[in-house]
Amino acid sequence: MAEANTRRRTRGGGGAARRAERTAVKIETAKYIERNIPNFEVLNDEALEIIEANAETVLAEIGVNFVDNPAALERWRDVGAEIEGERVRIPRGLARELIKTAPSSFTQHARNPEKSVVVGGRNLVLAPVYGPPFVRDAQGGRRYATMEDFNKFVKLAYMSKWLHHSGGTVCEPTDVPVNKRHLDMLLAHMTLSDKPFMGSVTDPSRAQDSVEMCEILFGKEFVQNNTVMTSLININSPMTFDDIMMGALEVYAKNNQACIVSPFIVGGAMAPVSVAGTLTQVLAEVLAGVAYTQIIRPGAPVIFGAFVSSIDMNSGAPTFGTPEASHVTYGAGQLARRLGLPFRSAGSFCGSKLPDAQAAYETANSLNMGLMAGVNFMLHACGWLEGGLVADFEKFVMDADQLGVLHGLAKGVAYDENAQAMDAIREVGPGGHYLGCAHTQANFKEAFWKTDLLDYKPFETWEEEGARDTRALASARVEHLLANYKQPQMDPAIQAALEAYVADKKASMPDAFT
Amino acid sequence: MAEANTRRRTRGGGGAARRAERTAVKIETAKYIERNIPNFEVLNDEALEIIEANAETVLAEIGVNFVDNPAALERWRDVGAEIEGERVRIPRGLARELIKTAPSSFTQHARNPEKSVVVGGRNLVLAPVYGPPFVRDAQGGRRYATMEDFNKFVKLAYMSKWLHHSGGTVCEPTDVPVNKRHLDMLLAHMTLSDKPFMGSVTDPSRAQDSVEMCEILFGKEFVQNNTVMTSLININSPMTFDDIMMGALEVYAKNNQACIVSPFIVGGAMAPVSVAGTLTQVLAEVLAGVAYTQIIRPGAPVIFGAFVSSIDMNSGAPTFGTPEASHVTYGAGQLARRLGLPFRSAGSFCGSKLPDAQAAYETANSLNMGLMAGVNFMLHACGWLEGGLVADFEKFVMDADQLGVLHGLAKGVAYDENAQAMDAIREVGPGGHYLGCAHTQANFKEAFWKTDLLDYKPFETWEEEGARDTRALASARVEHLLANYKQPQMDPAIQAALEAYVADKKASMPDAFT
Repeated sequence: MAEANTRRRTRGGGGAARRAERTAVKIETAKYIERNIPNFEVLNDEALEIIEANAETVLAEIGVNFVDNPAALERWRDVGAEIEGERVRIPRGLARELIKTAPSSFTQHARNPEKSVVVGGRNLVLAPVYGPPFVRDAQGGRRYATMEDFNKFVKLAYMSKWLHHSGGTVCEPTDVPVNKRHLDMLLAHMTLSDKPFMGSVTDPSRAQDSVEMCEILFGKEFVQNNTVMTSLININSPMTFDDIMMGALEVYAKNNQACIVSPFIVGGAMAPVSVAGTLTQVLAEVLAGVAYTQIIRPGAPVIFGAFVSSIDMNSGAPTFGTPEASHVTYGAGQLARRLGLPFRSAGSFCGSKLPDAQAAYETANSLNMGLMAGVNFMLHACGWLEGGLVADFEKFVMDADQLGVLHGLAKGVAYDENAQAMDAIREVGPGGHYLGCAHTQANFKEAFWKTDLLDYKPFETWEEEGARDTRALASARVEHLLANYKQPQMDPAIQAALEAYVADKKASMPDAFT
Repeated sequence: MAEANTRRRTRGGGGAARRAERTAVKIETAKYIERNIPNFEVLNDEALEIIEANAETVLAEIGVNFVDNPAALERWRDVGAEIEGERVRIPRGLARELIKTAPSSFTQHARNPEKSVVVGGRNLVLAPVYGPPFVRDAQGGRRYATMEDFNKFVKLAYMSKWLHHSGGTVCEPTDVPVNKRHLDMLLAHMTLSDKPFMGSVTDPSRAQDSVEMCEILFGKEFVQNNTVMTSLININSPMTFDDIMMGALEVYAKNNQACIVSPFIVGGAMAPVSVAGTLTQVLAEVLAGVAYTQIIRPGAPVIFGAFVSSIDMNSGAPTFGTPEASHVTYGAGQLARRLGLPFRSAGSFCGSKLPDAQAAYETANSLNMGLMAGVNFMLHACGWLEGGLVADFEKFVMDADQLGVLHGLAKGVAYDENAQAMDAIREVGPGGHYLGCAHTQANFKEAFWKTDLLDYKPFETWEEEGARDTRALASARVEHLLANYKQPQMDPAIQAALEAYVADKKASMPDAFT
């Protein structure tokens, strides 16, 4: 009896321990994806060569505009381009020659060295949604984003196993003046997370602030010798490079910080309605933008970017998860690899207003395509809603869970003796089952991707527990994660210095909301 | 004034005509997919050769069971297999030799010749969900399926542009006796649709009834010389071939009708927990099953099938849209192509209880994987819910819409002069837009896949219209389609003969519910 009691108590204790383990929040970050599967390629060599030749024709005969940026025009003239007003015509082969100094991959350092990422090669680095002015959740509905929302997203990204990167403007904190919000955003990334992050691009001075804050975080010398930010430089397609984005690019390239040079394509509006035509324009724009980074500083890290959506010709709305966007992305990946540049594209794209089935179809189409296309840096990998107008809390954790699927797919297929499982097949034999066999017992823990969110319960259990849909499960997960967030350790002196920098900067200028 | 009035009236009339066109239901069926994109392959030659050698070892040393089927054991003995009880051990190379007579592709004829399909090669034929005992819709919830539900699904499949096939047991009509429901199901496929369909496999006598009804529909001689049914023969994995399924297979093969020989895999339960081990077992099972069709009738059309899911090791529930299931499917496609057999796998798989985001992520993962894996016949391509327990009306039209995405992806990328769009890039130039340019005007109608369901409206419009989610939009579409259904034309004498056959058969035996 005494023994039985003891046993029961032990089992009870074990059960409590197991329950505690299940409810505890482990902060674990998977290493960036190193693909062990092929890339998916839709263009043959003939098509690639035609597109490459056409892109050179675009640069040489049509040219690109560098707007309100006389210094850029001077730089282009110095390297041999033909300047007419703000139009830059780049002789055949010149851009391709200039970009030879761009590295094929680079390390972006995180303040926690275990979370540094290598961008390029066969790797895939995942970063959250960027840019939405609105947020949404089931409880609060759709509303303008605030700094409080921003901080929550940074915490969720920090706690997500499958996100390697903290991102940049995960939402626009509209309650902070436009000319000061970059400071709060950077401070949040630097202090609430220890993953790598992005710098500000809304003004060259804000890019400079980003560099200076990194000098506090990482040390001045470290920043000059290493890449600690990857920032998003959009091209105003078709073929227009505005002074603000180029000004930010100049600051980053000069400081050896990485830029994503990224055409912003809504097919049929900002690019031709055909895939091959769009790829031609994308390649021409990227060649010009990447070449410009190398004019600023040869060897500066830079990514071949392509934000791709198609268009609904009835309404003019951008559309996502469509076959045409996939074709452009697959093709752009091939062009990037032929240039030897890291490639940024894809994301949790959708046009839906809610984190519903439409959102998930569109998102899954885009995420799968991104993995297959050989993307190296995937911005917007979770949380994107309503064409990018909304950062959605539930969708953030829903998408982040699906990023685990990409990790699993990228592993490829083992075929060593253990994986061949011949002993298991012999042991079980016709009509048996594998649930308890030795091979299953030895391998089941690592055999399958595990969701942190989706429901696999029997119908009756699920119904008794409230018949929750994915969004309801995600609401609970968001709440659970935020309730269990703990700030990663940081040298208090550095935190204080960062806070002082932000306070000084804010005090140095009046608020501006444009 | 008079002229203005006339104009206004003309515009009004045009508007009414356009509205009528928008609301009219066009019955249009896309041709089966002919892929112009590569297959995605995860196994290298070494892995494939190991798996192929191991599968021969499984057949020769472990063997498979043909249960309660002495005639099958005799047939196997006659071709050189070693029989021990119900165990059939197949010497190395024998199965591979036997399947050489199986065709690499075949035509399944529909009663409307325009809807006949060619299964094999680079084609993909899409068929709806198969087997659920329950149905669900937003209004009626989850309930046992009836013959009325069955008829509705046949009508929806008939009206779906992207479905090439009417399928088989789209749901189990549980209100009809088990021994008679195949008659009603076949009658529905034959009369409510003109697309190709599947035969009964729940008893050899019901397979025979299926053949006889086809003889009425197509003519006796036509059926003997052509394939008019593709039917699903599941293998009771691991390595067990039961007498009912084999009895149905024998009827179909003897009559030159196509069988899908399909291992039913829940990885970790019915197959090893590893991908390579699962593929070994799948290949061994398919080799034995396909060889058996060729023993029955050399040259009988047959498909390499693989129903693949993984398992949640906590609950034992099957899981869908997972990386491991994708790896098995990609690998099985490679093995099927090396055997020169058509390949069946994938579908609108999900474990979710509702047509929500979980359902859509899992489904989109599975559909994309199926296209990429080189699947030739995709059963369950729309309407699958809750691990196959439920056929969902809303999800049926949601998934069917996504099948349009697969059609678009499969097209590949054109790069002729029109597609290169150099004139458009010249015409628009830096800073312009492509919405109105000549190239866009000439190409926009065909440039992009168009949804029949998803919402692309501006937020404000969407909100004014009731802020509907995907399921609500799908409910409306189901209702609209069913209200506009019109039976395809049929020779009344044939319809009467089919109805008489069904009535006679039903009268010839008492109801049985097992």
